[in-house]
Amino acid sequence: MLPDQTLLRIPGPTPIPPSVQQAMNEPMIGHRNQETKDLLQTIKPKLKPVFGTEQEVLILAGSGTAGLEAAVVNAVRPGDEALVIVTGAFGDRFVKICDEYGISVHRYDVQWGEAISPETIAAYLANHPDIKAVFATYCETSTGVLNPVQELARVVHQNTDALFIVDGVSCVGGVQTEMDAWGIDILVTGSQKAMMLPPGLTFTAVSERAWQVIEKNERPSFYLDFKRYRDSLANNSTPFTPAISLLFGLKQVLTLLEKEGLNQVYRRHQLMKDMTRNAFRALNIPLLTADEAASPTVTAIKPDDFDPEALRNVLKEEFGLSIAGGQQHLKGKVFRIGHMGYCSPADIVQTISIIETALHNIGKSIELGKGTRAAQEILLKGGF
Amino acid sequence: MLPDQTLLRIPGPTPIPPSVQQAMNEPMIGHRNQETKDLLQTIKPKLKPVFGTEQEVLILAGSGTAGLEAAVVNAVRPGDEALVIVTGAFGDRFVKICDEYGISVHRYDVQWGEAISPETIAAYLANHPDIKAVFATYCETSTGVLNPVQELARVVHQNTDALFIVDGVSCVGGVQTEMDAWGIDILVTGSQKAMMLPPGLTFTAVSERAWQVIEKNERPSFYLDFKRYRDSLANNSTPFTPAISLLFGLKQVLTLLEKEGLNQVYRRHQLMKDMTRNAFRALNIPLLTADEAASPTVTAIKPDDFDPEALRNVLKEEFGLSIAGGQQHLKGKVFRIGHMGYCSPADIVQTISIIETALHNIGKSIELGKGTRAAQEILLKGGF
Repeated sequence: MLPDQTLLRIPGPTPIPPSVQQAMNEPMIGHRNQETKDLLQTIKPKLKPVFGTEQEVLILAGSGTAGLEAAVVNAVRPGDEALVIVTGAFGDRFVKICDEYGISVHRYDVQWGEAISPETIAAYLANHPDIKAVFATYCETSTGVLNPVQELARVVHQNTDALFIVDGVSCVGGVQTEMDAWGIDILVTGSQKAMMLPPGLTFTAVSERAWQVIEKNERPSFYLDFKRYRDSLANNSTPFTPAISLLFGLKQVLTLLEKEGLNQVYRRHQLMKDMTRNAFRALNIPLLTADEAASPTVTAIKPDDFDPEALRNVLKEEFGLSIAGGQQHLKGKVFRIGHMGYCSPADIVQTISIIETALHNIGKSIELGKGTRAAQEILLKGGF
Repeated sequence: MLPDQTLLRIPGPTPIPPSVQQAMNEPMIGHRNQETKDLLQTIKPKLKPVFGTEQEVLILAGSGTAGLEAAVVNAVRPGDEALVIVTGAFGDRFVKICDEYGISVHRYDVQWGEAISPETIAAYLANHPDIKAVFATYCETSTGVLNPVQELARVVHQNTDALFIVDGVSCVGGVQTEMDAWGIDILVTGSQKAMMLPPGLTFTAVSERAWQVIEKNERPSFYLDFKRYRDSLANNSTPFTPAISLLFGLKQVLTLLEKEGLNQVYRRHQLMKDMTRNAFRALNIPLLTADEAASPTVTAIKPDDFDPEALRNVLKEEFGLSIAGGQQHLKGKVFRIGHMGYCSPADIVQTISIIETALHNIGKSIELGKGTRAAQEILLKGGF
């Protein structure tokens, strides 16, 4: 192993681009000074296309979970009925948060590794007319599923007046997201995934319809009160001291996204997904998800003849490469490769070829280079 | 003005030491990897002396206000009576948070610029036996007052069974704090003041007595639930993705504090306070606070014959020096100099002499060098 080499291929936190790291080294500034106002003014319009919205994107200091909780606290009142569609560990987190606030939760479980079927949800909603909010996960980090939020938004609005609230933490910024056009009412993401920053910021955008509900709700939390963030942001400010170093970085992230072009960013993520999946398919190592359900940002692999933890240990110790294991009941049964944010097709080829080598180390018999070649073929075909 | 020179002398955010900035450039790591566990394990014991506690110090990603709200949410139940002692803008914030949660608030206002009198509070508490929590601000950032929390803790515990909850955001790390010995039940601070980090972390320690109350409380928030942080920290982990780059920095901050020695850190802050106050006294420019009430971390000055905003503008434009203005009803009436964290007596001499120059610029007649000399005299006497 090369000392000081770390290869971070988990589904977040993700590596920080050098120019973003550099930007975060700007000398500290006063949070009520003009510099901070200028920073927020620059950031505001550039965040909107990432969410696909004309609404301002609110920026909170906190983990992604703070953003998810803020969505619950602001949009749903204790006693309200809410449908939470659970496709993995992060849907489950929405349930826990709703439970904490005395929301009457309808929990709809989808088998881990499968995507939500909009038709089933349409039928469910038709039978439950009092549901005030529907919660879904865009990319379910624990399984690598990308749920069809566009279609889900449609069936939610066709069948109910409920708000449609989406956890986009592990994909927004890497996957096309058209919040306004699709009809997502609240969309949350975090800084440490496709947004290429260290953890510590959570972003939320809120539709006009959701603002109307929020305005009527009486007692949200203080720190998580969206209205305070909206009102401050209108003056290029924040209600509480913002995480300034991360905002420095964010400005540069948005410049990078603009430079590459969002469409190309999304195409790159699709390509990395296809390369990864094709590689494991070539190696005859089963993927957890079907092609139509697969996220461009993270791939879960479910081997049937070796221990994922043994592979992860060798990767970490011999190559400094971190990949993720499974969560909850998938612990020890899957491994997950993050391919989002500051990650390129070149990084995927490297990751696959290291994994092939490590598989040999743990005694799994494969044809060396076969997966890598399969990834290369996709790369060539993709015309990247 | 020298391009690219910024002199940040506001009461937070404060400048970042170069080695801390450097530490935050470590390559990103997985939040569930061994590296993060090692990081937290190193940090944990070194945070305790800063708080003066044997309890673990919990680390949340968020602004200081998130920590203040967490203290309210965890320790007080809706309907409970609480006494909030308000000595300025940040005591006022505690009231707003308590109001948000339906807590029955007794608000005790002290004139801005004065410290809380423990005797008065003792009498108040004797007449209000049902108070479950007393909230106070250690250093009131808006006025530069350091409240006598040690004596307050004593009178709170002598007169009631209430928990004593302290906002230490703008002084912990720069002022001696003996949470356990004094009897503070919950102590909150932030990263961007005396802790020499960018904003984005909030720290809290909780006494045994407070944990007993918290255990009995039924429904705190999800993200702000202290129990989750405590249980995760026991395994050198966090319940939600931590702000990893700030943790890298924190480790180095704690090394710096250890190297200088906490007693010397506190002595340095006392000295910077005395230098600043002596300078303005020599210049015949009135201080907002009396000597016995003055904080070692921030000084508020209330001129009677020039406009503080005019001074601040010249300082910013001509010298790149930021100082703070007044908040709420002190807006336009005071200016505030932060002297905490990565700030030395040499920086104070510089600040004073720049301010003298700028005072000339705005037409205030003073003897140039008089304030600087008064600061130097304190420095020499202080035997720094």
